[in-house]
This record gives sequence, C-alpha cells and structure tokens, in this order.
Amino acid sequence: MNISNEQMRFWSPEVRELEPYVPGEQPKLQNLLKLNTNENPYPPSPNVVAAIEAVLHNQADALRLYPDPDALQLKQAIADQQHLDVSQVFVGNGSDEVLAHIFKAFFIQNDAILYPDITYSFYPVYSQFFGVKTKQIPLNAHFEIDVEDYQQPNGGIIITNPNAPTSIALSLGKIEQVLKNNPDRVVVIDEAYVDFGAESAVSLIQRYDNLVVCQTTSKSRSLAGLRVGFALAQAHLIAALEAVKNSFNSYPIDRFALAAAVASFQDQSYFEAQCEKVIQSREVLVTQLETLGFKVLPSKANFIFVTHPAHDAATLATQLREQGIIVRYFNKPRINQFLRITIGTDVQNQRLIDSLSRLFHSA
Amino acid sequence: MNISNEQMRFWSPEVRELEPYVPGEQPKLQNLLKLNTNENPYPPSPNVVAAIEAVLHNQADALRLYPDPDALQLKQAIADQQHLDVSQVFVGNGSDEVLAHIFKAFFIQNDAILYPDITYSFYPVYSQFFGVKTKQIPLNAHFEIDVEDYQQPNGGIIITNPNAPTSIALSLGKIEQVLKNNPDRVVVIDEAYVDFGAESAVSLIQRYDNLVVCQTTSKSRSLAGLRVGFALAQAHLIAALEAVKNSFNSYPIDRFALAAAVASFQDQSYFEAQCEKVIQSREVLVTQLETLGFKVLPSKANFIFVTHPAHDAATLATQLREQGIIVRYFNKPRINQFLRITIGTDVQNQRLIDSLSRLFHSA
Repeated sequence: MNISNEQMRFWSPEVRELEPYVPGEQPKLQNLLKLNTNENPYPPSPNVVAAIEAVLHNQADALRLYPDPDALQLKQAIADQQHLDVSQVFVGNGSDEVLAHIFKAFFIQNDAILYPDITYSFYPVYSQFFGVKTKQIPLNAHFEIDVEDYQQPNGGIIITNPNAPTSIALSLGKIEQVLKNNPDRVVVIDEAYVDFGAESAVSLIQRYDNLVVCQTTSKSRSLAGLRVGFALAQAHLIAALEAVKNSFNSYPIDRFALAAAVASFQDQSYFEAQCEKVIQSREVLVTQLETLGFKVLPSKANFIFVTHPAHDAATLATQLREQGIIVRYFNKPRINQFLRITIGTDVQNQRLIDSLSRLFHSA
Repeated sequence: MNISNEQMRFWSPEVRELEPYVPGEQPKLQNLLKLNTNENPYPPSPNVVAAIEAVLHNQADALRLYPDPDALQLKQAIADQQHLDVSQVFVGNGSDEVLAHIFKAFFIQNDAILYPDITYSFYPVYSQFFGVKTKQIPLNAHFEIDVEDYQQPNGGIIITNPNAPTSIALSLGKIEQVLKNNPDRVVVIDEAYVDFGAESAVSLIQRYDNLVVCQTTSKSRSLAGLRVGFALAQAHLIAALEAVKNSFNSYPIDRFALAAAVASFQDQSYFEAQCEKVIQSREVLVTQLETLGFKVLPSKANFIFVTHPAHDAATLATQLREQGIIVRYFNKPRINQFLRITIGTDVQNQRLIDSLSRLFHSA
C-alpha cells in the first residue's frame, strides 16, 4: 500500500528502512504442483495425527490453558533423539523464529558477521532488523563455500549446510576448521536440509563451546504446517536463546504443535524411511534433468539447483507455471539463470520432466 | 544456570543485560485449581474442535505444507466480526508477539513512551529488548489511570484497558482524550480483557489515525492453548506491523490455530454467552470476598485484584497453594499486599471461598 509521509511519522524511524523477507508463494489453486518451498512430498508419521487427536479428545483443557512455556516434553524428545542433554535444546516457532533469536542473542557485536553471498535470504533481513553488521563472503566459482575465507575478524559466522539455494553440502571436517579458527565467536550451522544426505554438526557440540546447530521439523519431518524449529548447543549458549525468547514471547509453540513434534521425534524409523525415499527420488530426477541438458549442482538437500545452457531460467519458470508447476526463481546476481526445484514424489517429478520435455520439443 | 564470564563472551553485549518476563506458573499437578494466569474456565465454542478435526481429516496436506503467511482467512473472520476492513487487521502468535511487534514498529523514538507504573509487566521487558525509552506514570491513589498525566512529550503511549493486574477500566471518553492530546504519537490500547465488561476502543479506529487496539483469543475466546492475538488499526499502522513481522518470522500461526480462531470468530453467540457467565460469576465472587473482609478493586476483567486488611497477601498465596489453589502474587512496590485472582466457574470460586473461610477461622 502507499503510505503518505504524514502517516509515516508514526513508524519507528528504523522500521521505515526495513526490507522484509518474501517467502515462496503459497498458492490457493487446486492441482498446482508445488515445488517451490521445499516442503516434503510425504505426510508425517501417522503417530503425529494420532497425537493431535489425543490432545483434542483426552485433554479437556488443551484449548483454554496456556501451553508449557518451556516446552520441556518436546525438548526432552529432541534431546533423546539427538543424544544430548535437555539443557542443550532450544525450541521455537519454526526455525525462522529460532534464527531470529540467534541473531539477537549472539550477533549484535562490534565486528560484522560473515555469511555467503548466496545463501538463505532471511539472513540480511534479520541483520537489518537487529542492527547486526554483516559481510558477505562470495561462494567460489563452483558455488562452494571456501572455509579459508572465514579466517578473518568477525562478529560471528552463519553457514547453511547444505547451503540454500545451491544445495551443496560442506563436510564435517571443513566445519570443524571454521569452529577451530573462530574460538571466540559463535558459529551457527543452519541445518534445515541436513537430513537429506549431509553430515550434521550435532556430533561436534560436546567439543565446541562456540557451536550452535539450528534445525527444523518443516522439511524432513513434514511438519511445515505446524511451526516447530530448534537449536542445539552447549547450555551456556542455549541460556542466551532462552533469555531472548523470554523477553519476546513466552509461549511461541501451541499445544498441538508440541504434541505433534514429540510424536515425530519418537518415530525415528518412519522419519529415516521418508528421508531415504526423497533421496532416491532426487537421484532419479537429477539423471533425467541431465538427460534434458540441465546442469544440476550436486545436491544433499530435498531440492536441486539447476541451470540450462539453452533456456532462460525466468522464462522456464513462467512456462512451467503455465503448465501448473511452481518452482522458485531468484532474480539475483550470479543465480538468475538457475531454478530451485523441490524434490516431489516420483510421480510428481515425472510430471515435471514431461512438462519440460514438451516445452523443449515445442521450442 | 551459572554462566562464566568466559562463556558470556559469546552473548551479544545487550543480551547480557536482559531481564526476561516471568510468566505465571503452568503447574503439571492434577487437581490443582489454577486461578493464576487469567485463563477462561470454560472451553471454546464446540465449532473450534470441529474445525481442528476438519483440518486433520479433510486437508491431507495440512501438516506438510506451510500455512498461509498472510493468514488472510483469519484476518477476514476478525474483520467481519469487528466491522473493519481486512487491511485493518494484523494477527500474530498470541498478543505477546503482537505487542512485541508493536514496540518495534512504533515505539523506537527519541522520546520516552508512557505507561502506568502498575500494568502488564512485559512492557518494560519489550522496551529493554528493543531499546525503547520509557517513563512510568504512577496510577493515582485509587489505582486508576489519570489521563491528564498523559499530556506531556512522549514517544508513544500504551495503556492496558481494563488495566492489569488492577482490573480497573478506563472509559471510552478518557481514551479519546488521550488520542486527541497526542495526535503525532501512536496510542496503543491493550484490550486483552476488554470482553468482560469494558468498552472497546475499536469503535474509534476510523476516526483516529494514531490508535492501535490489541486483543487476544487467549482469554475471552478460551484459546490460550493455541496462540492467536491480533491488532486493529488504520491500514497505514497495520502496514508497519506487517513490515516488522515479515522481517522476523513469515509463518507465526500454524494451520490448526488458524482454523480454530476462524471458527471462534464465526460463533459470536457462544462467545458472548461465555463472557456473560464469567461476568456473573465475578459479581458473586466479589460479594463473597467482601463478606470475608477483602477489599476488591472494581473489576471489568476476568480477574479481580484483592487485598485484606488483616491478612498478609504473600502468606495467603502460600496458604492457598497448600490447599491446592494457585493465585498470582506480585512482590512489587504498591501492590505487594494484593492478590490477583482469575474468575473460575461458580464451583471453583466456591472452593476458593471455602478455603479462605477455613484459613480465616483457623487463624
């Protein structure tokens, strides 16, 4: 909307400058194939539905009473699954909220924080929101993170692993190098997509007092509809996140989301089987796209990042949308000839391949 | 936990100084009578349970897909019920999150914001969190707000109406006086408890471009377990809240909470009947407490604020807890001889009266 200068006097001056994050489209149309926001094509564990029904029918006070502000049962379920102590777990309203709290808790420093030039586009938004100084480090020519670039004065480091939207993973050895080279700064590894084939840094938590790992239930656990993210770290870092959270919103996770997430963490075999299905579908899809002439970056995520030497990416995105398929296109330097495509079921992926084949034949 | 100076180096310097909010206790014990966090003693509309079941069983993708980041359906339901345009509605994860966004959006100014010395204790916490300057204005000797005190240079004003924990309401005429006297500043009326007998300022929104009204579904709509709050104002003010929200967390309300809140706003007659029951129970309870010698401030909320000339408030709170009844005690200047008691059902209120009678007889 247009806001007049006179109306703008009511806004906090710093809020007038904000450039908010723009999430991927959530279309309301039927029959659209949604490969644009990296959701899981499979439902969560059946235990999740059962857990929500149990809250609805066995806990008469579930709706009228506040949830546990400390979410202890959920923290314990995560701690058990991750082999950590409950004091090493923080939970929030999706990993977006957890990341916001991380920026406030650790990154408001005299020096600039470091993150790649191509990565999750919410990082500059959080930075502006909290007045965090930033320095973007270019990915190398292969769209990889060179950890040597993270050996310079900084106020903290955040790395998405696997990175988004590139899908490329960093090895645990490289992450450890970053942790060792920055012993006085917090290093955050944002592992939103780690369960689809990359190595988690959780195994490093007991050895590094400067490591924060952030994960989400929205992708690998198929719970995007419920908003539960979490951070894992030594207790002195979790305490900072709790201080921030309790200065902002006491009860960010509702009773249904709490129960659903607990049920998900208690059904590890379903979780692992679903992740494996996505990985296998990804490998099939990559081969098919390469046959169509696409270059596909090596993915350890539930999405791929692709470019075609003979087809403009923005045009392709528009043409796919006309055929009822939405993929994510970023009109940004270096990546404006790429499309980010979420891995669907095999049937959905085949629909994508069929559409692309038709487009290429008619071109 | 104890955090060493060495560990504290990781925290953002400003976060080391935070003094977080402490919510009322959410005890896990059975048979405890919980009159400490102003929840509604009655369940929400039966339509709410039906709406959650419908999401669970009719929307196969409800769990794995992100919710609508703009929550348009919920905004429309609120707009319809409040006779506003959808552009005049903002929604968030409980009114605590909405209030946090309000402080960021409007109150980071050169001048100090004004609020009463005795009011919702989250206001100083938000202020510290966002670096908002504050000036507390003492309530008068009757614990009332004197609106004349709010005619001085300020960076904004926030008033809880009815006030908490005092329970005393301000008339619409007095609120209008504050709005008129501060045409260049945002005046926020926090109406968490307005539905239990006070006058809402929503009727003033079309006439005052500096008014923000904040409400919640946690009290009068019995949805504390689900986390939905909202703000109502002219569109140029709502736009500031959207800019803040979209710089912090795109999807703060999950699919079940969205559906439940919509169902609640669409069942206005149930809502009104429940509020009326609480009001009637309050009047009975007040009379009984006065008979026991309590002084009860005049309440327009779903709680009362009481003091007894012959019984120490902290001692009474401890004694009630021993009898399985929790009320809220604030160990703060001016109000450390008061108890805040949530209105329960008539049966629950009678249990409180019986306990107090026993305590006073054995004393």
